[in-house]
Amino acid sequence: MKGSDHLTYATQKIGREKVFRDPVHNYIRVDYQVILDLIDTPEFQRLRRIKQLGTTNSTFQGAEHSRFTHSLGVYEITRQICDQFQLNYPSQVAGDGLWDDQERLVALCAALLHDIGHGAYSHTFEHIFETDHEAITREIITSDSTHVNQILQRVAPDFPQKVASVIDHTYPNPQVVQMISSQIDADRMDYLLRDAYNTGTKYGEFDLTRVLRVMRPYQGGIAFLANGMHAVEDYIVSRFQMYQQVYFHPVSRGMEVVLQRLLQRAKMLYEQPEHAQNLAPQLLIPFFKKQFTLDDYLKLDDGVLNTYFIYWLDYPDQILNDLANRFLSRRPFKSVRFTTETERYLPKLQTLTEQAGYDATYYTAVNNSFDLPYDAYDPSSKTPKTQIEIMQSDGTLEELSSLSPLVAAISGKFSGDERFYFPKEMLANSDIELFQPIYQEFKRYINNGSLQKPTTD
Amino acid sequence: MKGSDHLTYATQKIGREKVFRDPVHNYIRVDYQVILDLIDTPEFQRLRRIKQLGTTNSTFQGAEHSRFTHSLGVYEITRQICDQFQLNYPSQVAGDGLWDDQERLVALCAALLHDIGHGAYSHTFEHIFETDHEAITREIITSDSTHVNQILQRVAPDFPQKVASVIDHTYPNPQVVQMISSQIDADRMDYLLRDAYNTGTKYGEFDLTRVLRVMRPYQGGIAFLANGMHAVEDYIVSRFQMYQQVYFHPVSRGMEVVLQRLLQRAKMLYEQPEHAQNLAPQLLIPFFKKQFTLDDYLKLDDGVLNTYFIYWLDYPDQILNDLANRFLSRRPFKSVRFTTETERYLPKLQTLTEQAGYDATYYTAVNNSFDLPYDAYDPSSKTPKTQIEIMQSDGTLEELSSLSPLVAAISGKFSGDERFYFPKEMLANSDIELFQPIYQEFKRYINNGSLQKPTTD
Amino acid sequence: MKGSDHLTYATQKIGREKVFRDPVHNYIRVDYQVILDLIDTPEFQRLRRIKQLGTTNSTFQGAEHSRFTHSLGVYEITRQICDQFQLNYPSQVAGDGLWDDQERLVALCAALLHDIGHGAYSHTFEHIFETDHEAITREIITSDSTHVNQILQRVAPDFPQKVASVIDHTYPNPQVVQMISSQIDADRMDYLLRDAYNTGTKYGEFDLTRVLRVMRPYQGGIAFLANGMHAVEDYIVSRFQMYQQVYFHPVSRGMEVVLQRLLQRAKMLYEQPEHAQNLAPQLLIPFFKKQFTLDDYLKLDDGVLNTYFIYWLDYPDQILNDLANRFLSRRPFKSVRFTTETERYLPKLQTLTEQAGYDATYYTAVNNSFDLPYDAYDPSSKTPKTQIEIMQSDGTLEELSSLSPLVAAISGKFSGDERFYFPKEMLANSDIELFQPIYQEFKRYINNGSLQKPTTD
Amino acid sequence: MKGSDHLTYATQKIGREKVFRDPVHNYIRVDYQVILDLIDTPEFQRLRRIKQLGTTNSTFQGAEHSRFTHSLGVYEITRQICDQFQLNYPSQVAGDGLWDDQERLVALCAALLHDIGHGAYSHTFEHIFETDHEAITREIITSDSTHVNQILQRVAPDFPQKVASVIDHTYPNPQVVQMISSQIDADRMDYLLRDAYNTGTKYGEFDLTRVLRVMRPYQGGIAFLANGMHAVEDYIVSRFQMYQQVYFHPVSRGMEVVLQRLLQRAKMLYEQPEHAQNLAPQLLIPFFKKQFTLDDYLKLDDGVLNTYFIYWLDYPDQILNDLANRFLSRRPFKSVRFTTETERYLPKLQTLTEQAGYDATYYTAVNNSFDLPYDAYDPSSKTPKTQIEIMQSDGTLEELSSLSPLVAAISGKFSGDERFYFPKEMLANSDIELFQPIYQEFKRYINNGSLQKPTTD
Repeated sequence: MKGSDHLTYATQKIGREKVFRDPVHNYIRVDYQVILDLIDTPEFQRLRRIKQLGTTNSTFQGAEHSRFTHSLGVYEITRQICDQFQLNYPSQVAGDGLWDDQERLVALCAALLHDIGHGAYSHTFEHIFETDHEAITREIITSDSTHVNQILQRVAPDFPQKVASVIDHTYPNPQVVQMISSQIDADRMDYLLRDAYNTGTKYGEFDLTRVLRVMRPYQGGIAFLANGMHAVEDYIVSRFQMYQQVYFHPVSRGMEVVLQRLLQRAKMLYEQPEHAQNLAPQLLIPFFKKQFTLDDYLKLDDGVLNTYFIYWLDYPDQILNDLANRFLSRRPFKSVRFTTETERYLPKLQTLTEQAGYDATYYTAVNNSFDLPYDAYDPSSKTPKTQIEIMQSDGTLEELSSLSPLVAAISGKFSGDERFYFPKEMLANSDIELFQPIYQEFKRYINNGSLQKPTTD
Repeated sequence: MKGSDHLTYATQKIGREKVFRDPVHNYIRVDYQVILDLIDTPEFQRLRRIKQLGTTNSTFQGAEHSRFTHSLGVYEITRQICDQFQLNYPSQVAGDGLWDDQERLVALCAALLHDIGHGAYSHTFEHIFETDHEAITREIITSDSTHVNQILQRVAPDFPQKVASVIDHTYPNPQVVQMISSQIDADRMDYLLRDAYNTGTKYGEFDLTRVLRVMRPYQGGIAFLANGMHAVEDYIVSRFQMYQQVYFHPVSRGMEVVLQRLLQRAKMLYEQPEHAQNLAPQLLIPFFKKQFTLDDYLKLDDGVLNTYFIYWLDYPDQILNDLANRFLSRRPFKSVRFTTETERYLPKLQTLTEQAGYDATYYTAVNNSFDLPYDAYDPSSKTPKTQIEIMQSDGTLEELSSLSPLVAAISGKFSGDERFYFPKEMLANSDIELFQPIYQEFKRYINNGSLQKPTTD
Repeated sequence: MKGSDHLTYATQKIGREKVFRDPVHNYIRVDYQVILDLIDTPEFQRLRRIKQLGTTNSTFQGAEHSRFTHSLGVYEITRQICDQFQLNYPSQVAGDGLWDDQERLVALCAALLHDIGHGAYSHTFEHIFETDHEAITREIITSDSTHVNQILQRVAPDFPQKVASVIDHTYPNPQVVQMISSQIDADRMDYLLRDAYNTGTKYGEFDLTRVLRVMRPYQGGIAFLANGMHAVEDYIVSRFQMYQQVYFHPVSRGMEVVLQRLLQRAKMLYEQPEHAQNLAPQLLIPFFKKQFTLDDYLKLDDGVLNTYFIYWLDYPDQILNDLANRFLSRRPFKSVRFTTETERYLPKLQTLTEQAGYDATYYTAVNNSFDLPYDAYDPSSKTPKTQIEIMQSDGTLEELSSLSPLVAAISGKFSGDERFYFPKEMLANSDIELFQPIYQEFKRYINNGSLQKPTTD
Repeated sequence: MKGSDHLTYATQKIGREKVFRDPVHNYIRVDYQVILDLIDTPEFQRLRRIKQLGTTNSTFQGAEHSRFTHSLGVYEITRQICDQFQLNYPSQVAGDGLWDDQERLVALCAALLHDIGHGAYSHTFEHIFETDHEAITREIITSDSTHVNQILQRVAPDFPQKVASVIDHTYPNPQVVQMISSQIDADRMDYLLRDAYNTGTKYGEFDLTRVLRVMRPYQGGIAFLANGMHAVEDYIVSRFQMYQQVYFHPVSRGMEVVLQRLLQRAKMLYEQPEHAQNLAPQLLIPFFKKQFTLDDYLKLDDGVLNTYFIYWLDYPDQILNDLANRFLSRRPFKSVRFTTETERYLPKLQTLTEQAGYDATYYTAVNNSFDLPYDAYDPSSKTPKTQIEIMQSDGTLEELSSLSPLVAAISGKFSGDERFYFPKEMLANSDIELFQPIYQEFKRYINNGSLQKPTTD
């Protein structure tokens, strides 16, 4: 392929811009042929089959949207940032700290592809099978076996590597990196708005137009004009509320725990020869064996996993089929909060669960919201993420939480909750007389949703 | 089970009403234990895994919502209708044509369950495998092998049959039947609003609150107060626009055609012994064999079908793997409109498609929007659906289209379009010199998206 | 003033664009100094004190918005049209029928100022005092006594005349004229959206973004791309519904009739020397005398008129104070529809109204919705407004109603309704025994809101 | 009037409920005849002519809504609270702390009438003329000269007093009092939503449905269920943001300062015999004289004041006509923030303003946002308003800020800003050479919008 093709392709606009109708941004506008081609790859289309919020739709039923729509949304916000930067802050000379529109295409591609390595039921699956969606994102972009890579190569031989480095945070231009990944980036902005729209919660809404208007490039990355501080503040509060009320919801976590135990059970069974053949999860086998290729990975999606769970409904292992049934029929484990003080009662609850006939390895779990990839805004943490800088009229920068009491209140103070999960049945009245005293005993340890010193009768 | 249990269960309210957060109705309110129990059945939960709009998300990317959320929405609208009827038009004596609140539970159950027999990629699958989702809905409700049936039986032994008869339109009370199934029922009202919300189109929006306010029961069913005529008119126009612009979109139909040809190919291959074993679509086999049970049917969903399509990407039948690839990677067939006048050129186009190397049986198709289950409002058709009756102040009824020029304009005048589908490649410039003249010839028959007398050079 | 000032001022941008927060368009963006200066004139600020929808807030309480916010909205939509035209259809050579961005400023100014001559309670006031808001708009723009004119002159000496000619439809470039005034112009698009937003009706909503996207300039003005036909159709239907349900609402018209009669009474009294001095409507006197200057006109607004109505509450003319009271306390006249057939009963109703003690000259009225400045879409009328042209792929134009059955149904077929207005008391039960038979007789002529052959007892 | 009339009237429902279309609540539902009659009084209709947010529309142009629409909104929210209480917490025996639906009518009337004593440009007018809208509210309700009182008396002779006592906080039932007036009452909830809707800011939005759902009556008033804490938190944050960004906006305050100075000037002139006759503000005279009746008060509204300002444009007192012009043409004073440290420069700025030819008494002002009737949530203040109590599952109450770090961060920590106001011209470049050094000197004291130690050259 000749140099001239690169040149052409990198700048090739489609005739009239193409639009994708989107409920969040109304229209997603595409004018580069590269972007259209990336969207049309099998690797990208696969994201349609992976839910953005995993098991959250078990609690917020409308959360049925995919990583595909989110990825297009991140692209769109990035495009709008580039437009604003180019309109208001175009670089005049190299190194002036303003926006160099030559960076546009690498920013747009990185935005579009930043989640392309995500797999089915992402975090839970990763946990069990030790996959790493960030490494896979990099591989999809840089390995020449993918359609994505071949398209990026047509722009320039080193272009795939550049795109990957933006996602890796190693790209030299901090403006491009921060667009895609910082405390207030296109990724977070799209998911807050999109998750709020689909769940029907209002907390996630903020004034995107205004936030975009007050962004401005500078040498160190992206800052926010002082007169837009309140819009940024509102975004931070929205994010806080979405985490507390949607992303950390104990019931969705109760479904994740079931999924986790189900996959663990399958994996354990697979290690036993008499089961290995019969479990028949053709597309999962490479993962059970810990010998999977990129191609194997790209064949998985939510539907594939669910299909094997359907197979397992009839599988003659009672724990496997019961857990599959709980997952498919939305019967999450229940939970109680506990603290470092009440933690010592957990063994007792596990024992009682065993006595009621449940294998505690598969029917109980400890889960805390810190496990989740939470990105609290905490400029004082040991490894702080990019701070949010507010630019004063005289050009000096001040860190957001030093200006906003609201943000200061939230920063780093969030305490996630730790929960113990167990089968819902433990809280019921047993039909079986034998178990009734066990259930009674179990309930003595719980009050107002928290673990407690047991009540005495 | 004793009579007293029936009585109790039929009227059993949960303590404080339970709500489901919903983006369309904000909250869905449940106060009967029966309804909660039905929602928790595996048959109902399965609806989460079936998209409401099948392949439409290939065109309107946000259309990722499931039949589950829609079904809850239909329940909620029905609940609101019952509330309004009971508040404003409670029956005083039997036969007075007003609302008998004893009918509430059967109405709610029918609303919730009206789509429970839908399968994966509903209409396309039915077409190929000769299944019938209406018959299956009835079976799920009335066959005592299902959880749904067992719950309904607890209300009363004849209750499942009652619920089924509402959906069948044979239930004696026309008010209940029309709530669930008429020109302006809870089903259509929910799907218009929900599809509009998720696709991000505004056409489907109408003033639900006002339409509900002007509904009133009468002997013959449900009528609409004259002062609400414009709200009803607006609903009809919205429906018209959604059909024209969303449901009949030629690109989504181009994906359905690919799906149809893919399933046909698989079915054909399965009939050949050398393929039967290797295709390996475990959960589809009963359907290939035309010997399926209700249990087999309930195991299918969108994800299961997609999983087999993923299997087939590697299957050594070129047509099968190519069609699977087109479907999974969203490469719909292209189309041209044709009329009875230009229909005669179709064989020529098929021949050209064959000459370009495509098996016309699997790579071309005729599809018209009449095939789709379109419910145009047409009071003058031979088998008209329920008319919409407007009640004047003196109690007389007038059919809507006689009062509204807008509705009269739409009624029965809709002309769907007939289209010929073919591979997108036929419109490209071929890389292979050999095919170039064929492609050129093909394009001579097409102008402005319509089939035409070929242009002469 | 020197030529160089003109040049500078015409192109003078403010540093960073200034935005006005707006509930309909989110932000209204201004970057020309001229526009900011025009907004800051007393003539333009006065529009804040004139309601956009006159008496409509007596029926739709939220309709409290002013002509000021609407005028900014029209400006904003025009700005967006210019942006789109300049992006997609920039003129290459003079006369190529594409967009010449030199026209932008005249278009923006005309958009902003198109309603600047509107007065308090516009149509009613004009009717009584024979003012003409279109002539006054022209005068404000072209008379050098106004701030508006002085600002426009700074752009170029002939610029005020140019702006006025756009509003007059005599400007040579039809694209600019049609932006501001045609069947689907910035004016109508803003008022539909804004009135819908403020009244809380959904009918007026349509997809502005899409309509703007499919507009394109051509030699004859502005056409719409064929693939956007449905969005245009939706706009036409929205407009139809807003007229039928909001703008023609019989209760708002009942308030207008009261206002009309009140002003007529005051005018009649003023012609009598004994009243002329005492009525004291200082700012209205020039209008009573039919000798008013532009300055007199610019002092009037809704609040000024209302102030005099408050004065008149205590004025010793019973008809005047009663009508003032009805207007201020929102007690509209009631109405019945009549037709050419039932028209003959009107004298009888007037007589009965007189017998009940009301001066029929001031307490009855005939009002039909045709009186209102209705702009039905009717390409077949004798003096049709600009047609809406749909541009096919091959560049040919087709008139909208020939393509859309929906629009065809509405076009020119609208039948406004004629109504007879009278005091609400005529429908009540009188406390005064004497009048009871009169009221009874009156009601015999009314059924279902329509005039009818009287019922016999 | 007989007892039976009271009984009838108090409970008299209108046939089918009447609805008012409202953009915020969609519909406002009325079923008591008393409420309809109150809405129809001249005292209540007058609220249509008083803007809810005074001069705020000079900054947020959409803020054109009146106290009328807000008052109906407060009524509607109160009605919904009563419905929810009656459905879920109906009192069984007197004194059980649950909801006694006999209280409904007094609550609804108090909600509707709580603002009825507000006058034109409320707080500014009160400040200058020493009126008291709360006292006037009481008088309108209890003085038998008003239509409002006569309607309330028909319910029961002591009913007006009861309604007034709810607004006064002296009514014995704290549930009723807190519905209308507490940290989270129907008044605040409506104005946040309505002001957000009309200004187009999103900050004021919160989940009304959810907040209403989690309210519950108890002995001490109204508490909030623990599972709704986040919705309450969101409301508090919304309120905080609306105050910071809308209600305290420095530009609107700059308009208020102009208004204040204008009224002061007129009042001063009126005290001089040569002016008293000519100022001619007929309806204002009783206020200049400090001898006004309720009837005088009820004749004032925004439009009446504006009318006199229009008169004064031509009045031969330069300060009066200039200030009138600034107010009508929206030319607010500019401002700088100052602190206790920089306060000492104020005299210097005043002197410079005088030197530039402005009378500092009328052309400068100090204004701080504490002047505004701000109701920060501060449970620890010396005279705290009602706390917000969260009810745990076991019935115990906890004060909100002890549970919510977000609310704790805001509570009582808000520091309003103090500003010095002066004519915009002081920041301009003077055309008059003479003044140039004065303006230069003035600007040396200002940096980044704050007063500062002057820069040295």
